[in-house]
Amino acid sequence: MADPSLPGEFELIARYFAPLAEGVPGALGLKDDAGLIAPSPGCELVVTTDTVIADVHFRAADPPDLVARKALRVNVSDLAAMGARPRVYLVALSVSPETTEAWVAGFSAGLRADQARFRIGLLGGDTTSTPGPLTITITAIGEVAVGKALHRSTARPGDLVFVSGTIGDAALGLGLIQGRLTGLASEQADHLRQRYLLPEPRVELGLALGGVACAAMDVSDGLVADLGHICSASGVAAVIEAGRVPLSAAAREAILADPRRLETALTGGDDYELLFTVAAGKRADVARAAAAAGVAATEVGRIEAGSGVTVTGPDGRTLALTRGGYRHF
Amino acid sequence: MADPSLPGEFELIARYFAPLAEGVPGALGLKDDAGLIAPSPGCELVVTTDTVIADVHFRAADPPDLVARKALRVNVSDLAAMGARPRVYLVALSVSPETTEAWVAGFSAGLRADQARFRIGLLGGDTTSTPGPLTITITAIGEVAVGKALHRSTARPGDLVFVSGTIGDAALGLGLIQGRLTGLASEQADHLRQRYLLPEPRVELGLALGGVACAAMDVSDGLVADLGHICSASGVAAVIEAGRVPLSAAAREAILADPRRLETALTGGDDYELLFTVAAGKRADVARAAAAAGVAATEVGRIEAGSGVTVTGPDGRTLALTRGGYRHF
Repeated sequence: MADPSLPGEFELIARYFAPLAEGVPGALGLKDDAGLIAPSPGCELVVTTDTVIADVHFRAADPPDLVARKALRVNVSDLAAMGARPRVYLVALSVSPETTEAWVAGFSAGLRADQARFRIGLLGGDTTSTPGPLTITITAIGEVAVGKALHRSTARPGDLVFVSGTIGDAALGLGLIQGRLTGLASEQADHLRQRYLLPEPRVELGLALGGVACAAMDVSDGLVADLGHICSASGVAAVIEAGRVPLSAAAREAILADPRRLETALTGGDDYELLFTVAAGKRADVARAAAAAGVAATEVGRIEAGSGVTVTGPDGRTLALTRGGYRHF
Repeated sequence: MADPSLPGEFELIARYFAPLAEGVPGALGLKDDAGLIAPSPGCELVVTTDTVIADVHFRAADPPDLVARKALRVNVSDLAAMGARPRVYLVALSVSPETTEAWVAGFSAGLRADQARFRIGLLGGDTTSTPGPLTITITAIGEVAVGKALHRSTARPGDLVFVSGTIGDAALGLGLIQGRLTGLASEQADHLRQRYLLPEPRVELGLALGGVACAAMDVSDGLVADLGHICSASGVAAVIEAGRVPLSAAAREAILADPRRLETALTGGDDYELLFTVAAGKRADVARAAAAAGVAATEVGRIEAGSGVTVTGPDGRTLALTRGGYRHF
């Protein structure tokens, strides 16, 4: 069912995946039924899995190296959200009838680039052939000191709410890619598109937030929806001050041209920034952690007793948002 | 894109997957970005991932509980092949436009049944929606004493070759299901079909083979092809005596009716029996391990210097096999 010109399963593994496992202890050259891993002394492992599907989560025509890197990065971002250091990953690749060897080569090159970037190695995987769209499931494993993982369920009333980086770029970038957003200067449009295609997992910040943050997660469904996940897991409410949400110059420009895009920024997905809460006395600790990680962390609101997320405008009045966050279905 | 009657992602997780994670330490109620796990003292973790796709690896109309159990079991079998004890698994489920809530309920019930059977718990997962066929990627994690995992690459000339259980039932069962094999008594046909639909991972045998086996793997691509994998990984050759390969009564009956089916049995996939080698002096240790595990282990051949797998008939002459093992593409 795979393209007849595509090399067979074992050849693909030997050419494009086994090299990614070289030097990875426990990967056993991808020649065994499974891989081996043990946490460093005093650590436990953190495991996450995420699937991305052609023409659902990315466009089939996207450059394969970017597809690979984003597929890996959305998993690395989950590790970052738990305060974990990446160790290894497994990739289950289901090739479609259209998948070419050049595509697999590009996919493998993208993984290689990000392996170096995030110090993560290939531990194992599976290659299959599907009559449907190309599908990638990555399982990423990191480690964190025992008992020190960050959770969604530990926000407390009185906590301050922070986000890293800037919010909304990816949703606006997707709008550009899909032709719903036009009229931006090319440099700004490039920035927004790039933020959609290649998110930056905040691994160093996640590590620096150990012992600082009360609760944390990554923003994948959208800022408002994801803060809602923290609220429901923690049994608390939250208020976001829209005017404090950090925006890139490109996002500000897009919103100035059409203020309705603020809602896109606040509720759109795919930011992969860290969203976290800290006790009220810890602003200086956050500033130190952010400086150490080399990324901005901006206070955007607070945790209160109750339930649900409220977004207030510059005048303090509640903004009525019409869109929820991203759901897979 | 999912069936509009299918509950949303978060509802599906709450109803059908979170209950499977209850009581699993580190699963965190499936409410965090990732799950946590640490090996028991003196152990390391063993990690494997396998994808199954509707109408590729199973029929879309198969009972969903059996689909779930086989998807989990092929992963558990990889753990068994490494001599590992199952601990936890993650499931990435991509529902198709045809997937109903009843299907997900049945799928979840199948996972629950096998969680108890193999003492494995749900650590995490991902649910997405695909326009293609329903796709399941399971990542299973087990543990083994540090340095005691079984490998494919450690067979040595002079080793004896053993397999557990019986060989070829699943390939013949698939022939029945696909209508290529007919004329068997219904009880025997049922046995073969069941062996295809619900393999029995040899976890207890894998555990008992620690310190006994030189090399091991599970038979998923077919006995001849998989012994070939051991040979290429170990840099050795192997001889299988076809007359010693253990066959069920049903398989014997099918082969008596058409001797060409012996080749189907020897080269067909999906047995999920253990294939292992031991030093020549260890027959009694194998017998003890098999008795402890409650499964037969049958000597079928030997490892020699050289490369490749030879199959000999009752007269000692080499059988010419026309089919290789299963490849995903």
